[in-house]
Amino acid sequence: MTTSPAAAPPRIALHPDRLLPPDPATRSVARELYAAVRDLPIVSPHGHVPARWLADDVPFPDPTALLITPDHYLTRLLHARGVPLTDLGVGGDEGHPAPPDPARSRAAFRLLCRHWPAFRGTPVKLWLEQVLVEVLGVDLVPSEATADDLYDAVAARVAEPGFRPRALYERFRIDVLATTDDPCDDLRHHAALRDDPAWRGRVVPTFRPDRYLEAGEPGWPDRLDALAEASGADTGTLAGWVDAMQRRRASFAEHGAVSADHGHRDARMAPLDPADGERLYARARAGRATAAEAEALRQGLLFEMARMSSEDGLVMTLHPGVRRDHHAPSRERLGTDIGADIPVPVEFTEALRPVLHAFGTNPRFRLVVFTIDETTFSRELAPLAGFYPSLYVGAPWWFLDAPDAMDRYRAAVTETAGFAKTSGFVDDTRAYLSIPARHDVARRADAAYLARLVTAHRLTLEEALETARDLVTTLPRKAFRL
Amino acid sequence: MTTSPAAAPPRIALHPDRLLPPDPATRSVARELYAAVRDLPIVSPHGHVPARWLADDVPFPDPTALLITPDHYLTRLLHARGVPLTDLGVGGDEGHPAPPDPARSRAAFRLLCRHWPAFRGTPVKLWLEQVLVEVLGVDLVPSEATADDLYDAVAARVAEPGFRPRALYERFRIDVLATTDDPCDDLRHHAALRDDPAWRGRVVPTFRPDRYLEAGEPGWPDRLDALAEASGADTGTLAGWVDAMQRRRASFAEHGAVSADHGHRDARMAPLDPADGERLYARARAGRATAAEAEALRQGLLFEMARMSSEDGLVMTLHPGVRRDHHAPSRERLGTDIGADIPVPVEFTEALRPVLHAFGTNPRFRLVVFTIDETTFSRELAPLAGFYPSLYVGAPWWFLDAPDAMDRYRAAVTETAGFAKTSGFVDDTRAYLSIPARHDVARRADAAYLARLVTAHRLTLEEALETARDLVTTLPRKAFRL
Amino acid sequence: MTTSPAAAPPRIALHPDRLLPPDPATRSVARELYAAVRDLPIVSPHGHVPARWLADDVPFPDPTALLITPDHYLTRLLHARGVPLTDLGVGGDEGHPAPPDPARSRAAFRLLCRHWPAFRGTPVKLWLEQVLVEVLGVDLVPSEATADDLYDAVAARVAEPGFRPRALYERFRIDVLATTDDPCDDLRHHAALRDDPAWRGRVVPTFRPDRYLEAGEPGWPDRLDALAEASGADTGTLAGWVDAMQRRRASFAEHGAVSADHGHRDARMAPLDPADGERLYARARAGRATAAEAEALRQGLLFEMARMSSEDGLVMTLHPGVRRDHHAPSRERLGTDIGADIPVPVEFTEALRPVLHAFGTNPRFRLVVFTIDETTFSRELAPLAGFYPSLYVGAPWWFLDAPDAMDRYRAAVTETAGFAKTSGFVDDTRAYLSIPARHDVARRADAAYLARLVTAHRLTLEEALETARDLVTTLPRKAFRL
Repeated sequence: MTTSPAAAPPRIALHPDRLLPPDPATRSVARELYAAVRDLPIVSPHGHVPARWLADDVPFPDPTALLITPDHYLTRLLHARGVPLTDLGVGGDEGHPAPPDPARSRAAFRLLCRHWPAFRGTPVKLWLEQVLVEVLGVDLVPSEATADDLYDAVAARVAEPGFRPRALYERFRIDVLATTDDPCDDLRHHAALRDDPAWRGRVVPTFRPDRYLEAGEPGWPDRLDALAEASGADTGTLAGWVDAMQRRRASFAEHGAVSADHGHRDARMAPLDPADGERLYARARAGRATAAEAEALRQGLLFEMARMSSEDGLVMTLHPGVRRDHHAPSRERLGTDIGADIPVPVEFTEALRPVLHAFGTNPRFRLVVFTIDETTFSRELAPLAGFYPSLYVGAPWWFLDAPDAMDRYRAAVTETAGFAKTSGFVDDTRAYLSIPARHDVARRADAAYLARLVTAHRLTLEEALETARDLVTTLPRKAFRL
Repeated sequence: MTTSPAAAPPRIALHPDRLLPPDPATRSVARELYAAVRDLPIVSPHGHVPARWLADDVPFPDPTALLITPDHYLTRLLHARGVPLTDLGVGGDEGHPAPPDPARSRAAFRLLCRHWPAFRGTPVKLWLEQVLVEVLGVDLVPSEATADDLYDAVAARVAEPGFRPRALYERFRIDVLATTDDPCDDLRHHAALRDDPAWRGRVVPTFRPDRYLEAGEPGWPDRLDALAEASGADTGTLAGWVDAMQRRRASFAEHGAVSADHGHRDARMAPLDPADGERLYARARAGRATAAEAEALRQGLLFEMARMSSEDGLVMTLHPGVRRDHHAPSRERLGTDIGADIPVPVEFTEALRPVLHAFGTNPRFRLVVFTIDETTFSRELAPLAGFYPSLYVGAPWWFLDAPDAMDRYRAAVTETAGFAKTSGFVDDTRAYLSIPARHDVARRADAAYLARLVTAHRLTLEEALETARDLVTTLPRKAFRL
Repeated sequence: MTTSPAAAPPRIALHPDRLLPPDPATRSVARELYAAVRDLPIVSPHGHVPARWLADDVPFPDPTALLITPDHYLTRLLHARGVPLTDLGVGGDEGHPAPPDPARSRAAFRLLCRHWPAFRGTPVKLWLEQVLVEVLGVDLVPSEATADDLYDAVAARVAEPGFRPRALYERFRIDVLATTDDPCDDLRHHAALRDDPAWRGRVVPTFRPDRYLEAGEPGWPDRLDALAEASGADTGTLAGWVDAMQRRRASFAEHGAVSADHGHRDARMAPLDPADGERLYARARAGRATAAEAEALRQGLLFEMARMSSEDGLVMTLHPGVRRDHHAPSRERLGTDIGADIPVPVEFTEALRPVLHAFGTNPRFRLVVFTIDETTFSRELAPLAGFYPSLYVGAPWWFLDAPDAMDRYRAAVTETAGFAKTSGFVDDTRAYLSIPARHDVARRADAAYLARLVTAHRLTLEEALETARDLVTTLPRKAFRL
């Protein structure tokens, strides 16, 4: 591709009104609402940034490791265009890999730039454009022609001290950032941050015990051995498992955790009769549980988790309804968690009955439910949150973390449950640089929704302003007990 | 909370354009459409106002008994904010209770006012603001500061003769109002109204036999005894049950009933082989039916109801897909029907096949199907109503009785089934004062939807005007045979 | 109905801006986008026009046979209004019937005109108005008063040589038109067109083998006999069935076919163990398969079809999730395929796992999935298409082939899968005259959606223009390998 020397490459223009409603009167209201929240600090109560990045303040190795490899939203769409995941660095240690082969990184970056039109209409385009312009100060539109210049510009920027994780934490005005951690994690990076006099931020762990509840998954007994070692409790019995989990939760709480997160295939949980539970647990521990027994045990263990939340006050969050690692061949080759998870229909009304009977009106219990099955917003989650004091509707998650989906979420939830029983935005990301852009998109989307209520004379401007501020300040703090 | 003496409390301003579309050209069309229907009489073919209120023209006891206790929409959201239902009077005789303790009523009213911001974005806010301003002539914005003044103002207004049920019936321009009644009800209040020369309205009963079809529910045999007594038929056999129901339906029809309403967990109904049916019925009557048998019997009895509708011409309405009394502890403490019903997914295409095979093209049969599972509008109900002459899609019900949900309903149904196979608006309420506000919201929402079709040049203004009028006049009369 | 002589009957006015967004700035962008695609040739990769019409260039017999009888969208809504299907000519040979009774045709046309208001808000109104004005040059608004004049005007027009199928093909600027054909079809009309030096269009067959996969349907063994004869392979064994299908697919490919279409009740397909498969096949061939076995066999045969697609490169398209011939009495009286098909919920995430494991990243395999269950767009299809290179999301189909539904489709799919993994518009129609109108509605709807992205500053105008053109040119060609 050749361009005449006079033709300047196109530049990204971030319009200040992006995502605001088209009608001029409504847009004017939306501008005012957005202006009131644009610069408020970021509360990020659920995400996947590793604490080590901030504890060690490690520099980012290169543009691909920074922007592409850790971001499933990007890698899956490139894969859908025929790009092999391995060409994007997926399948290695994505936490913070050793500096990769520069040529491979550059080649991966070129692939992103070549396929850039495939991201039109997706939030990836919104986020990455904002990251390039506002965070990295680079405004070239990605394309085959600009790929190398863009790569070099980002690489140069990332090498500057101002682009280390701690400097960005300050610059992003992050108030609190939650990580997601294994129950056996010793949380030393969180402890290091806590004990570091030079650190003024707040990074809290989140207890994520999924793999210790799935007796049907390979490796479960080994995990329980590790749990025993980490907790000092004997996981040979169900009572011991409960004891171990309680100890680890207490340790997480001591390190600042406010929530425990759970992501299983469905949302069912139900109490086990103690004797049955021990018997089932023993069978599973011995590797002799049937699939149905493993499933019953998982439901019982999840119910135990809810009971613990009702006692230790860690907010219980659910992210159910996903077939993890849908493509078995990729899982075999590249491992789990490579952006190949696909949603399935999910049911809440019956699934949550036992836990809501037990703890639904218990003021110590708080349950925040996320879903990718939009049908449940108006049919199940908003009605449940509109009755049970303990239940909150989580923000649009994953595939729904995008402007149109956010508008559908508010439209589906608000008329039945109002705003006060929703969680506030959750970025849920491991793409550290995109955190401000993601919160910004959510703030714009909420401003757009609220502005429509004002123009329809359903809210006064004052009511809308107060609500817009609540959505980014008091609401996430309340839902997550921050 | 203190306010300076100069600060006047905020007032509710009901904007004449509320709920109309923001685009100026579309809003202008919507205004014209709305103006054409705003003052047309109210046809309310399905609701829960007791006939006794009108027969005896009983004054409302106090603001809480009038506005809060009977309105699940209000009480459930307050409960979701942590307010105990008993603090709101829920759980007693909510029909028209004896004058409650004035201090408790005032305290309940304060709770509503304190939590008023929780209703932002919900239709409760729209309805109650309109009730306060247009019906009660009070325009204080509810808040802790205004609670007592508001309570006193409403109490004073309610004590006036012009706020008795009959005076309001006239003032609301209600043309016909359907109640919902037990098959054993002697309908004496309906008879009293019919025989009262001073009464010029039309209040018709609706046959609601759910509890006589659920053989799996406790107390079912006792109910059949009561049915035997009320009907004079022996309910010891299935044939007798059918006979009893037919007699009670005939009595309802004599008292003006035009429809029979049914609300079970799903929409399935299927004919029973006569011999099998008697055997099943006998087992259930003896309390020996399994859950599956009770379910099969219920489907058979519901099919019998459809058959009766195809003969006596009472319109059959379905309100399926709800887990009633979801929170068992509240049910144990406060009884049924306390606003804790939660929707479940529902299926119509297969469930309705048998009844549509039998009566789907029978001109005497009419079936109006309501749902809270929005997914069924475009997938099942509109396609069914777009083929079967007997089937109508019911208006958005319950959690969907709100402006955005109404818009989604029209958008999901109209392209497949047009307007002519929809039921017209149904308020379904026991909150008597809110009836005009609820119909007004529906008229505004339909005007908004139709205006968008005009601006998109899908309808001419004349077509839209005719349709808007049909939706509040000929359509509900046709769907409900009024 | 009498009208004064001075009152001219109302005329249809096709507004140039129809279906474009109401906001003036957005409409202006939409106009520009629409103008860029309005006159581009029509790519119709899936439809139901018989090849014989074009091969023989047969004149259309009369207005009813042209506009009413073959169009299920029309006949089903008239049936829903109480019009017997037989009054509309449904149930006969609808391909191109012998000239019917003129009096009956005229009577059917009057029924359409009388019930014309029932089509308000449906796409039928849009299509038929455009057909009348733009194709037939008649602008009378259908009504009882205009029925006969309209009939006569259409009849006169249809008799002109310019209204023969070939002349219309040219006038409609059709680039390629796919038909839908039985595997046993000898495709002689396609061959005749190919060999006709006077023919410059492109009409390609589509392989549609549903009835040869459904061992549970009556007549299945007879069909396999016919397949044996058509293919020259022995269908006595599963291996023979596969051989026969491969031969027929090869013949279709030789005649220009690019895709094989499949429409079963659900989307499940799974490989059969070869020995089990032969055993199952033999049992089914002998008429001794249970319903569950017939279902397992169907899933296995469909998987074989996918395997064949991965080898011969015919694009596999799925149209699942429909209860065919829902009304059994009408089926008995009038036969199948009379517009009485009703959607059911459908599941893709689990159903498609086996085929995506086998071929999901195989560049030779292409799977285009259509659905009428809108819930699957954001929950399942867009996530699947956003990961698997082989999978494309089909355009809104059937009941969703309408402006609002198209907007919901784009909103549900784009944020997760972008534009590049969608199929482009598919008219899926046997109503030949309506093909340009249907594509026009789709182009307008896409222009409207894209314009909103531009006004929200999510796309630049240049990006939107390029995307709009792609949607009607490169995308359908790529998805269907044209």
